[in-house]
Amino acid sequence: MSIENEVFVSEKELNTFCTQILENIGVPDDDAKIVVENLLEADLRGVYSHGVVRFPIYVKRILDGGTNPKAKMSILKETRTTAVVDGDNGLGHLVGVQAMQLAIEKASEGDCVFVAVKNSNHFGAAAYYTEMAARNNMIGFSFTIGAINHMTPWGGAEAMLGNNPFSVAFPTRESFPIVLDMACSIAARGKIIVAAKEGKPIPADWATGPDGLATTDAVEALKGFVTPLGGPKGYALTLTVGLLSTMLSGAFFGSDVGDLYDKTSTAQNSGHLFGVLPVASFDDLENYLSRMDKAINDMRNAKKATDVERIYLPGEREHLSLIKAKENGIPLGHALYQELTELGHQYNIMLRKLY
Amino acid sequence: MSIENEVFVSEKELNTFCTQILENIGVPDDDAKIVVENLLEADLRGVYSHGVVRFPIYVKRILDGGTNPKAKMSILKETRTTAVVDGDNGLGHLVGVQAMQLAIEKASEGDCVFVAVKNSNHFGAAAYYTEMAARNNMIGFSFTIGAINHMTPWGGAEAMLGNNPFSVAFPTRESFPIVLDMACSIAARGKIIVAAKEGKPIPADWATGPDGLATTDAVEALKGFVTPLGGPKGYALTLTVGLLSTMLSGAFFGSDVGDLYDKTSTAQNSGHLFGVLPVASFDDLENYLSRMDKAINDMRNAKKATDVERIYLPGEREHLSLIKAKENGIPLGHALYQELTELGHQYNIMLRKLY
Repeated sequence: MSIENEVFVSEKELNTFCTQILENIGVPDDDAKIVVENLLEADLRGVYSHGVVRFPIYVKRILDGGTNPKAKMSILKETRTTAVVDGDNGLGHLVGVQAMQLAIEKASEGDCVFVAVKNSNHFGAAAYYTEMAARNNMIGFSFTIGAINHMTPWGGAEAMLGNNPFSVAFPTRESFPIVLDMACSIAARGKIIVAAKEGKPIPADWATGPDGLATTDAVEALKGFVTPLGGPKGYALTLTVGLLSTMLSGAFFGSDVGDLYDKTSTAQNSGHLFGVLPVASFDDLENYLSRMDKAINDMRNAKKATDVERIYLPGEREHLSLIKAKENGIPLGHALYQELTELGHQYNIMLRKLY
Repeated sequence: MSIENEVFVSEKELNTFCTQILENIGVPDDDAKIVVENLLEADLRGVYSHGVVRFPIYVKRILDGGTNPKAKMSILKETRTTAVVDGDNGLGHLVGVQAMQLAIEKASEGDCVFVAVKNSNHFGAAAYYTEMAARNNMIGFSFTIGAINHMTPWGGAEAMLGNNPFSVAFPTRESFPIVLDMACSIAARGKIIVAAKEGKPIPADWATGPDGLATTDAVEALKGFVTPLGGPKGYALTLTVGLLSTMLSGAFFGSDVGDLYDKTSTAQNSGHLFGVLPVASFDDLENYLSRMDKAINDMRNAKKATDVERIYLPGEREHLSLIKAKENGIPLGHALYQELTELGHQYNIMLRKLY
């Protein structure tokens, strides 16, 4: 996502700003810190679609009663390698961190552990949770149900599926884990919105119109549905991530899923699934890390396509973005900066830009 | 895959034929039965790319010394929820079944269990293993490294990745589990071979030429590489499945991966990862199954796109194919029937067709 008319705000400033607003609307201090650290990590990593651009809707949902600012996660059922937790309709970022922490703690004796979550909300970037696992020398998995249905089952013309992101992260000897973080639609709906505003056509495989048939008309596409990557394979993948995220806990799926932006006074009952595989339970950690070194080198040192200067590992660009943003500040589009500033005014909280 | 000039052979006939040939080349009776049942399930389900079409190469690899007909799987390391097994260079179908059986047995007390495999071979259809888990009321995962590198890292022009299939299956109250089974390339290489033979162009997103740049020329594409679905996302997904399949066990990855068809006297050291999540450790099985019923109905009863008569669940078409093929026999392309018949002649084993 490119950002035009950018201003830059320091991570610290943005952190203080968001934390203070959450505290002002009833979120306990410690919880607010967890949420904001998680949220800003997305902006630092250049994943702007899941950063502070979403902050206003999280605030609105708390104010409108759709999200519980004082949520206390509880464990509904537990075995030595599984748990089901109720997020008490708390902010998804908080519930997610607590649930992944539970998985990591339960795996401290070396077990594979999975934790299913219900009564949660939009949890931001799926990579945040799997990176927690990777820092503990575990392969991490996270799956979530999308917070809006924009996709049909294959052959359908009715939105029954979200874009259902998921992530897997691997510990490495690099300064970053290898981390897959993907949603299941070919293109983000935001790109279709941009094309519609500019009156431009979209590629034929991005979306269907309301009749379920492929369209290159962006306006028709906005009345219709986004398409999964890889056609019917992508439908199966989207459904799979959705079922993993909800069926073990009883979170909402399919026709029960509300709209993050439209029904701000109603609980979303979002679901997630977190999993960890402790590497040392399979092999000596150093053996594994040496194999990862070799795998990383295989990718990096592969012959390059014409005009390609460098091959990246999944998660590497995001890590480079993070280093840069910690130094130079986080770029915000002008409209977003304006929106946040106005939100701050209501609580007498300033958001100073660097430049 | 459509099959022209078909003949039909009964499942029983094809089973006896393949089992006897395996026994003739040194595979123990019980092992041969496991392999052939697994192999024919793919044909029954209409997944012809992973059925008896591969049988001749499996036989050749045993004859040439690349695969061990008398393999005995051993456990290299084990905890209560993990195991690493050495497949002793056995037929992948046998190693896979034994490794998934181990995972299911280890999960009998309700634990999440993952089993990593090294020294295996091409294991056929990934769905076979996850369906074993689903029949035991567990969500099953299987991941495997592809047996040939045909894909580059994103931006590369050197094959370092296979198409790395994976599967997830969910228990249901239907007569079949919901089962995702997908490889990571947009199009099977076989489709490019067909286009090249017919002198037809291919879609621009199917493959690149040897320079790593997109091509619509099928002949150039065959000198080049298949592309992952979803672009860079697909590269990340392919790499992830490959790492899951190999890094915990020490199976070959990247530059070490040989070619199933070319290096028939050399062990492939293929890797897999199998995982199971016992549903009842998360929630009462009946609650879960009722939620699955509702999810299935959401998909099936969604409004249909113009001209679409029926919406299928992942795995449903394959199940319907299986019912039909058990009754009518398994369709074989004429060339394949010929190839199998000739193979049989060497051992005085007949393959009678139904019609």
